[in-house]
Amino acid sequence: MFKTRLFIPGPTPINPEVQKALSSPMINHRGPEYEALQKEIVENLKKVFKTSNPIIVFPSAGTGGMEAAIVNFLSPGDKVICASIGVFGDRFASIAKAYGAEVVKVDFEWGKAIDPSKLQQALDDNPDAKALLMTHNETSTGVTNDLWAIKEILKEREILWIVDAISSLVAIDLPTDELGVDVVVGGSQKAFMIPPGLSFLAVSEKALKYAENAQMPRFYFDIKAMLKSMERNQTPYTPALPQLFALREALRQILEEGLDNVQKRHKQVGETIRRGIKAIGLKIFADEKFASNTVTAIYNPEGVDVRKLRSFLREKFGVVLAGGQGAIQNTVFRIGHLGYVDVIDALTVLSALEIGLKVLGYPVELGKGVKAGEEFIAEEVQ
Amino acid sequence: MFKTRLFIPGPTPINPEVQKALSSPMINHRGPEYEALQKEIVENLKKVFKTSNPIIVFPSAGTGGMEAAIVNFLSPGDKVICASIGVFGDRFASIAKAYGAEVVKVDFEWGKAIDPSKLQQALDDNPDAKALLMTHNETSTGVTNDLWAIKEILKEREILWIVDAISSLVAIDLPTDELGVDVVVGGSQKAFMIPPGLSFLAVSEKALKYAENAQMPRFYFDIKAMLKSMERNQTPYTPALPQLFALREALRQILEEGLDNVQKRHKQVGETIRRGIKAIGLKIFADEKFASNTVTAIYNPEGVDVRKLRSFLREKFGVVLAGGQGAIQNTVFRIGHLGYVDVIDALTVLSALEIGLKVLGYPVELGKGVKAGEEFIAEEVQ
Repeated sequence: MFKTRLFIPGPTPINPEVQKALSSPMINHRGPEYEALQKEIVENLKKVFKTSNPIIVFPSAGTGGMEAAIVNFLSPGDKVICASIGVFGDRFASIAKAYGAEVVKVDFEWGKAIDPSKLQQALDDNPDAKALLMTHNETSTGVTNDLWAIKEILKEREILWIVDAISSLVAIDLPTDELGVDVVVGGSQKAFMIPPGLSFLAVSEKALKYAENAQMPRFYFDIKAMLKSMERNQTPYTPALPQLFALREALRQILEEGLDNVQKRHKQVGETIRRGIKAIGLKIFADEKFASNTVTAIYNPEGVDVRKLRSFLREKFGVVLAGGQGAIQNTVFRIGHLGYVDVIDALTVLSALEIGLKVLGYPVELGKGVKAGEEFIAEEVQ
Repeated sequence: MFKTRLFIPGPTPINPEVQKALSSPMINHRGPEYEALQKEIVENLKKVFKTSNPIIVFPSAGTGGMEAAIVNFLSPGDKVICASIGVFGDRFASIAKAYGAEVVKVDFEWGKAIDPSKLQQALDDNPDAKALLMTHNETSTGVTNDLWAIKEILKEREILWIVDAISSLVAIDLPTDELGVDVVVGGSQKAFMIPPGLSFLAVSEKALKYAENAQMPRFYFDIKAMLKSMERNQTPYTPALPQLFALREALRQILEEGLDNVQKRHKQVGETIRRGIKAIGLKIFADEKFASNTVTAIYNPEGVDVRKLRSFLREKFGVVLAGGQGAIQNTVFRIGHLGYVDVIDALTVLSALEIGLKVLGYPVELGKGVKAGEEFIAEEVQ
């Protein structure tokens, strides 16, 4: 493969400055240099999460952050409602079950967002539920839930609101404090534009109260130990230094570009992809009103072996797309478009896809998807 | 600028492995590790130049290599014929003049290749000329001279054949020994896919004989001192180590891809660009029969301020194009497409260009150039 062009929903491409930061020499993680590093990162993460709550950084995959978001706040036998719209909603439920929670799973049709009235009913039916687990942006279906609609139905309820925002944070607005989300989970290899290896947890005061009595067993993901160390800008165990060096650089870049601009860029990229895909004649899996600006799931083109299509694009053009997951593994393929990505990248993946479809016999008019994308971009940049 | 997409005729983008090699720790340039480095590089350069002649590596810009190609083989007062089709042909003449050569300049219309019959006439008119200076690929006009046609008219002549192949080597075939070129000049920041800082000189046995009596003053670019040091895989002065580390890696990659494949790739990229440009409705400056596969000069679109166009593409999309040079500075702009580049990159620059033209009011049908490029690629990859 001559060039690699990653269009998967994480790991995402990383930019040259972040790459350089990754190669920084090791430092003593118990020394003052480390403390300054952690201090800056936590301060800047708060700006990105739009919160004054403490933010914890774990050396883990995003799934570790999801585990931390459960085990620190609940006890075995606690009832939790898990609103799922796809693979990662299901994963949240699985973690809660593994630790002995009584999970009331509220499933929504894949491709759709959470229906607030159905969720409201579940909340009404389960007044003893301790927590609501949900996904902000479902990576498997390319759907973004409307957190404002959820906030509306949570009004006046005591329930702890726990949101997996791994594939949305940075790219899609999530004003933690304004929404009042109690626990927000993030991951490094998404719109943070750095490699996998870190998860983030923003924790509200209310969540910290829950933490006092939470009986689920934990050690690695224990936030109390973390928060205690963090008072001295330290960690209870060894931090993943390369990712932290990269994160410091990436956060500086994100704040320099401006969070609003970063989100506008993702919106434009998402729109370019969607217009192009539709012009090509393919069908987007997500309900358009809730289509994600970070990942697009597309119905497999009729008559085309989509594994062949993905292999072709990877081998000939280095364009790497993602397959389907879970129940829609053989129904869709996916384009990830988050992080170090812009509208020109969106045109790149559209043009490669058009050629791939053509070569594999799908009736596509070459250039049509790119044209639709270009028309949108030409309007936007004027 | 969010991303930088270099489409200038050097420096060219470099790939991640070469980037890593550039950051290698310094070594003792008088030690065995350096000797192994130089030995491997020279051996692999010979494969790329298709020659068994010695190849010298100077820590210099390409222009330094051009100077070396003159001062080592000629004496003040020597008559040389300089066949020029653009800025870099003119530069060759300027260097020869600066060292006191009597330059017979044979100019050809810019945009055209050397006309062999006109050159033959000049050779016939100047039987005492010691050397023929010429450019293989003229970067300012996007024209590649046909070296086989030149070989034909040089048959049975004693004249030293000196070729500047800085913007062609690797990307465009130049079988040094088969052609019988006496001195071939290369530069690192072109299709070698590494940063600026090195020039290369392949020197024939005949050229080495000329060198024995050459009286032009020289020290830094003296090949005798170089060749003597090279017997021990050494250099007479400090080599540019980062570029050499990068070159070792790049040459391995070039040979792994296969020189034929590298050249086929450049041909496909060049063709994609040309078809796209024509479909957009713009006019290519070069005589199509001799259009270069590494750089394309395009007539400025009527009614468009091309400086504004280039600024727009750079600021909005990070797409960096080159302006015109010399006599055609205000006539053309240029797209460089050599080195770490593939057909998808060609589509990228076409799509950005279409949007830029549209926004600046040029009557372009969006997607048309990309479509033409995609049609060509779809045929090629099948």
